[in-house]
Formats: sequence, C-alpha cells, structure tokens
Amino acid sequence: MTAIRSKRNLLSIKQLSNEQIYHLIHLAEKLKDPVNRPSFSGQFAANLFLEPSTRTKTSFHIAEKRLGFDVVELDGIDSSLTKGESLYDTLKTLESLGVGLAVVRQSEVDGLSTCTEGVDIPLINAGDGCGEHPTQSLLDLYTIYEHFQSFKGLHVCIAGDLKHSRVARSNAYALRQLGATVSFVSKPEWQDPTMAQNYITMDEAVETCDVLMLLRIQHERHTGHEETGSYLEQYGLTVEREARMMKHSIILHPAPVNRGVEIDESLVECEKSKIFRQMTNGVTMRMAIIHALMKGEL
Amino acid sequence: MTAIRSKRNLLSIKQLSNEQIYHLIHLAEKLKDPVNRPSFSGQFAANLFLEPSTRTKTSFHIAEKRLGFDVVELDGIDSSLTKGESLYDTLKTLESLGVGLAVVRQSEVDGLSTCTEGVDIPLINAGDGCGEHPTQSLLDLYTIYEHFQSFKGLHVCIAGDLKHSRVARSNAYALRQLGATVSFVSKPEWQDPTMAQNYITMDEAVETCDVLMLLRIQHERHTGHEETGSYLEQYGLTVEREARMMKHSIILHPAPVNRGVEIDESLVECEKSKIFRQMTNGVTMRMAIIHALMKGEL
Amino acid sequence: MTAIRSKRNLLSIKQLSNEQIYHLIHLAEKLKDPVNRPSFSGQFAANLFLEPSTRTKTSFHIAEKRLGFDVVELDGIDSSLTKGESLYDTLKTLESLGVGLAVVRQSEVDGLSTCTEGVDIPLINAGDGCGEHPTQSLLDLYTIYEHFQSFKGLHVCIAGDLKHSRVARSNAYALRQLGATVSFVSKPEWQDPTMAQNYITMDEAVETCDVLMLLRIQHERHTGHEETGSYLEQYGLTVEREARMMKHSIILHPAPVNRGVEIDESLVECEKSKIFRQMTNGVTMRMAIIHALMKGEL
Repeated sequence: MTAIRSKRNLLSIKQLSNEQIYHLIHLAEKLKDPVNRPSFSGQFAANLFLEPSTRTKTSFHIAEKRLGFDVVELDGIDSSLTKGESLYDTLKTLESLGVGLAVVRQSEVDGLSTCTEGVDIPLINAGDGCGEHPTQSLLDLYTIYEHFQSFKGLHVCIAGDLKHSRVARSNAYALRQLGATVSFVSKPEWQDPTMAQNYITMDEAVETCDVLMLLRIQHERHTGHEETGSYLEQYGLTVEREARMMKHSIILHPAPVNRGVEIDESLVECEKSKIFRQMTNGVTMRMAIIHALMKGEL
Repeated sequence: MTAIRSKRNLLSIKQLSNEQIYHLIHLAEKLKDPVNRPSFSGQFAANLFLEPSTRTKTSFHIAEKRLGFDVVELDGIDSSLTKGESLYDTLKTLESLGVGLAVVRQSEVDGLSTCTEGVDIPLINAGDGCGEHPTQSLLDLYTIYEHFQSFKGLHVCIAGDLKHSRVARSNAYALRQLGATVSFVSKPEWQDPTMAQNYITMDEAVETCDVLMLLRIQHERHTGHEETGSYLEQYGLTVEREARMMKHSIILHPAPVNRGVEIDESLVECEKSKIFRQMTNGVTMRMAIIHALMKGEL
Repeated sequence: MTAIRSKRNLLSIKQLSNEQIYHLIHLAEKLKDPVNRPSFSGQFAANLFLEPSTRTKTSFHIAEKRLGFDVVELDGIDSSLTKGESLYDTLKTLESLGVGLAVVRQSEVDGLSTCTEGVDIPLINAGDGCGEHPTQSLLDLYTIYEHFQSFKGLHVCIAGDLKHSRVARSNAYALRQLGATVSFVSKPEWQDPTMAQNYITMDEAVETCDVLMLLRIQHERHTGHEETGSYLEQYGLTVEREARMMKHSIILHPAPVNRGVEIDESLVECEKSKIFRQMTNGVTMRMAIIHALMKGEL
C-alpha cells in the first residue's frame, strides 16, 4: 500500500527510471502546445514554501494555473500551519481542506518521506535543504535533451559549490544513469567526495564538455565570508574561456546568477547560454510532472 | 437601517437563532455537492488577516473559490492599508476597489462592529482576539450535527484554556441555546467564571460526555512559560482515558493540535477523532455562510 | 528599436501626449461596462512590489483579473528573485516563465528605464521611490475629468508634502499640459523649487481652487519626528475652510488619509470628497492602461 502511494509522489530523482525520465521529457514537449493540456479545473494545488523561493514557486504557480488548478500559496511567514505544527499535520490539514496536490520546499533533508504514508495526495519535493531538488534536475535534463536529442556520450561538467548544491547531486546521478559522462570543477573546500571523484580544472572543462553546468554560489548557506573577486578568474566562466568552448556546447545555470562571479556579466545572455531557456522549460516540465502524478503515470 | 445592514454580517454566533443555525447546517449539507453551488463568478472576496492564520484563511480561500469568487489576500505584513489606517478605512477602501465580501481576522474584541454602519459589503468575523470566532463555532456545530443528527440532550464537555479561547465562549453559548448540556474541564488559572460554573475533572468528562471538545493551548497568548509535561496526564486526553469514553462519543479539536499535550499523539487520528473532519466541514460550512450572507438569508 | 519598445511601457506621465491621456480616459469610461472588456484569458500578469503597498497592488490585481489575466504576486519579503538579483534579471526571469505583463513598485527613481531594452513584455511603473507614479496621476486626472468634463481653465491646488510626493510632480506636469492652472500649498521645508514657484496659503486655496488635491504626509519617508497636531490648523483642510470652498469644487487625496492631519475627520466622506471615488476609478483606469499597453495603443 505504501509502495503504491509513494509512486504518486516525486521526492527524489533517484526514484525515476530512464524510461520515466524520457516519458516526462516527451510529455513536456507535448504540453508546450496548449491544446494538449488536460484540465484539472475545480482542483486545488498548494505551494508550501517554508524556505524562500520565488523562481520555483512562480514556476509551479504558472504550471498549475495552465493546467486549470486553483492555487493556494503558503509560506513560512504569517503561517499558523507551521507554528509548532509538524509538516505531516500541515499536509494532512491541506488534504482535509480539499487540496489535491502539494508542492513543498522545506529545509530538512528527506523531510517529506515521513509524510507519504499518511497523506494521500501527490507530494512534490521542491527542494529539501541540501538534499534534492528533482524538478530542477528534470528541467535541466529536458533542456539538455532539447538541444542534443540524446544523453548518451555527452560530457557534462558540473562546476561550482558541490557541497551545498542539491541540484548537483541529483543531476550527477541522473545524467550518469542516462549515459552521460559527468566531471566536476570545484574549489577544494567545496568538493564532495561522496558525489564525485573526477575533478578537472575549468580550463580543461571548457575545451572538452558538451554541457557546462554552472552552480550558484549560495552565500546564504555559507557560514563565513568568502572572496568572490578572484572566483571568476580561477573557477568561473570568463569571456576568454567561453571562446574556447566547442561550437555545439551549451551553458546552464539554475539561477539566480551572481553576475561576474560564476560567469562573466556579458555571457549570461550569449548564444550558448540556455539560462533563461531553462526557466521557460521549467514551467513546461512541471506541467508534465504534475500531469503524470495526477494521472498515476509515475 | 443599521439593523438591516447588520443582518448581512456575521460578527457573533449570538446573532443567530436556532433556526438560522439549522438553515446553515442544511445549506452546508446541500453545498457538499458541487452541482448545488451557486456561482458568484466575477465577484471579489477579500481575506484580511491582520493576525496570523493559515488554516482559517486557506479554508475561506477554498470556500470562496468553490463559489466562483476571485480572492484578494491581504495580511498585516507588507500592507500599507493597515499602516496607520483604521480598519474602517481599510474596509471602505476594499469596497471602493470593487470587493464584494470581506473576511476579517484582527486582534481587537468586537473590532468589526464599528465598521458595519458605513461599509455596505458583507463582513465576516474570522476571529477577533480573545472575542469570538463564529465560523469555527458553526463548523464545530455542523460536525456534531453530522454525527448525532441532533443537539438536544447531548453532553458536550469543553476542555482546556477557557480564558484565552474565543471558540469556547461561542460554542458554549450556541450549544446551550440548541439544547445541549455543556460542562467544562480546566486548570484553575484558566477557568473563566463569566462563561462557566460547572467544572468537572477530565476523568468525569470522558465517562459522561458525548462530545469531548478539546481546546488548543495557545502559547502565543500566554505571557509566562508553563509546564506542558504534566498537562496531558492531569487535564489532557490520554490513551487510558480515551478507552473509557462511550462507544458513540466523539473528539473535537480546533487545531493545530499540540500533540502529546492536549491529546496523546496516537489518538489524533483515532476513530473517535473528528479533528480532520472538522477541517473538511469548515470549507463546506464557510461556503454556506458566504452563500447565505450574499443572498441576504441571514 | 528601443523607441518602439518603450511605447509598450508606462514609466512616466511625461511620455503621454494630451491625446493619449484623453484616449485612456475615454477607454476607462468604456471599460466600466463589463461587456466592453477584452479578455486576456490564459495570460499572466506579475505584480512585483518591492516596497509596501496594498491599495495600489489590490487595485492592479482586480483590474488584471477583470481583464481575464491570471495574477502572480511577488513582494520583497520571502523572495529569492530579489536577493542579490538585479531588477533586470528578475523581470527577464518573469518573462521567461511566461508572464505577459509586469507591474513594478521599487525604490530607485527611474529604476525601470534600464530594463526596457532587454525585456520585451510591457512594464508599468507603480511607483519608483520619490520619482513618479503615473497610474495614480492618471486616476486623479480621470476623476477630475469625470467631474468637470474638461481640464482647461481649472485651478488645481496641490497641498502638502511636495518634496516627498511622487504624485505631486506627475500631476503638476500633466495638469499644466492639459491646460489647468496649478498652484501649491506647502510648509516651507517641504517646498520643492524644481516643481513649483507659485505657493499660496491654504486660506487662499480653498476660496479659489476647483480641485483641492491633498497629499499624504508620508511619515515613512521623513527622517525626524514632526508635530502633526497643528498641521491641520495651519496647512490642512478644516471644517471651517471647507465651508469656504466653491460649490462645484472637489477634494482629492491619494490615501491612506491621516485623518485629522491633512483633512478633518468629518470631511473624509463629505459630498465634495472624491477620495473613495478615486479608488474605484483607479481600478477602471488601470484596466484602460493595461488594455492600451497590451494592444500597443500607447
């Protein structure tokens, strides 16, 4: 029973087979056209964001509305749901109020997994602290697939603060499973031996990778202050390095970009950059995920 | 003129006759079925919550959307409406902007009553400090009626922090009016002589009541710190006490529950507990209240 | 190219010709009737309010919903969009997410003008610090026109804190362009020589003006504390002064009113006062502005 229920949730990229990932990508392609979108009119989606987010929250909001949902927004501020109330009770409350789908961002790694047994509505993990962020991974995968029409044999280099990135871990796992080769660029103190062994330099990366996946330096997750002045020169994508990238290669970044830190200001909207395309794809992929969960296809 | 207008507001449970309460209960029953719901499409409801709430606010939001309203959410944070502006001017502003119904939570007891003369749109009191919370009362009454199909002769015991509970006062009044016998369990320092005389112990309560209505310990309204460790044993619903309750009796709680304080963790979702059912009924009852106010039936 | 794009934005009242202002006023008149409203169903409007506002935000929200938009609300609190992210990147993000119109309140004077080149969706300035607030100006103009059916030859007196008022500057400019005579009443320390030379006393103003446009004392923009006790007597609209106004003259105020400071408590809803009418007209005028921008008519 629990096993059946958990199929209706998206908690981790690791729960998805290659076949399921391809299904979601093809579904997203299809849902680009409004005439192919099912209507969940009369149903309610709740976006429960206990950690700040606007990009992801707005992306889900638009995806939900495009599928006909009414949307209930809940956040940590001004919320009695979260005052001394467990996540489980909060979700059970939303279910009792008539909500049919809950999207949750909160700070505890794997915090949603204790809720899936008692809560019957589909749950989507929209980021659990330093844990996972599977819908971001899926939109990244979708953007890569949209460009290359395949993952096999691609060299993807993930560059940046690996230790604090929930996206890096999810993406590395999924990309390897899909047949890509994944390498990493990181300052020694941000390397994470549980995720990666094959570290290369940024100069090696730009010349050999098909996909350069930059990570955001998450100042809010760091305790001390750091020098960002020289970061671009040592570890970031400078104009000079971008010029050495292969013609067909692309640049990804989950945004918001620290302009001039991870990437030179002038490159954010360059031809290779799919940074804003990722956002557009995020809405479409989230429609596909919601559709699949509601229809019991995952 | 004022008298006519005030009929279009729900400020206190005391304004309702038994006949009106039964009308709302029967209307709620009817509105469970979506085909019976009228549409207020093109109209706007404003939820003005100047004190934190998510449960009640979300409940109203869903009720309003199910009746076809567009919903405007306003809260105390980030609101210039409430900066040095009176509640009256705020409501008059909402009316001028085209809002057709306002649901208000604010901290001043009876704070809405000064607004009803000048503001023409229906106003609903969604909690006024330590005053009243009539829609919570009505959903409690609805849940009791749904189970027993009557109030006459029922023994309802209200247990907990009577002094700080707006629900207790409203419920005690309405239940007596409807023919129930109401008793009370409370720590001596939380007893309120203006509301109740007949205090009993929790052990007496569980053996004799048809409805055990637990109140939330509202830590946010208490000034000092209190021991909650022994509260459950002395005044709360333990597993041992629940076992002594009559077969047909039910447990209510306005939530959020302090698990392990007012009630043992394992009893929150027990068969007798209607705690999550109350939330479901809250949405339906609020649809009935809004419908009745908009149609001038109250 | 930039010129063409900028025609799709409303950043300043100064960009509008008299012909365009009259077009908006006539369009607003027409949109009062719901049957004349176009539907932008399936499109998203984003209200990005980085400074507190509820009146203007709610007004836009209702205008947008009446035109069929889905509305995304973003504010400064709890928003990762604005954490170290430029306004340009935020707007580019919203555009990438599928938003078709953005309404922006933020603190930097003329802060939106740097965004118009790269962002293709229509942008509306909903207040930029001490800069402009063109939609407030247009609703003021609309309210004056609604009453007098003309601007030519009217004497409009703007009274209050000119230095901190974005409305005063915009209105003075537009009213002069439309053929009105504009005079000013202000405490010496709130006078602004770049806006006005012809200061008069409040006693002169009430006897000669057709429109008395009171400004809000914006305590939040003042650094020191000020005496408001005697303000009403010296510079505000007392009952005695109102009695000396001409029969046909009207009173405007952008609200929220500091009752008893800019205007006597008892005059807020007097016959001459169009203060709540301005709010009603604001929704209609904002529908007209949005309609005109979306259709490329400005």
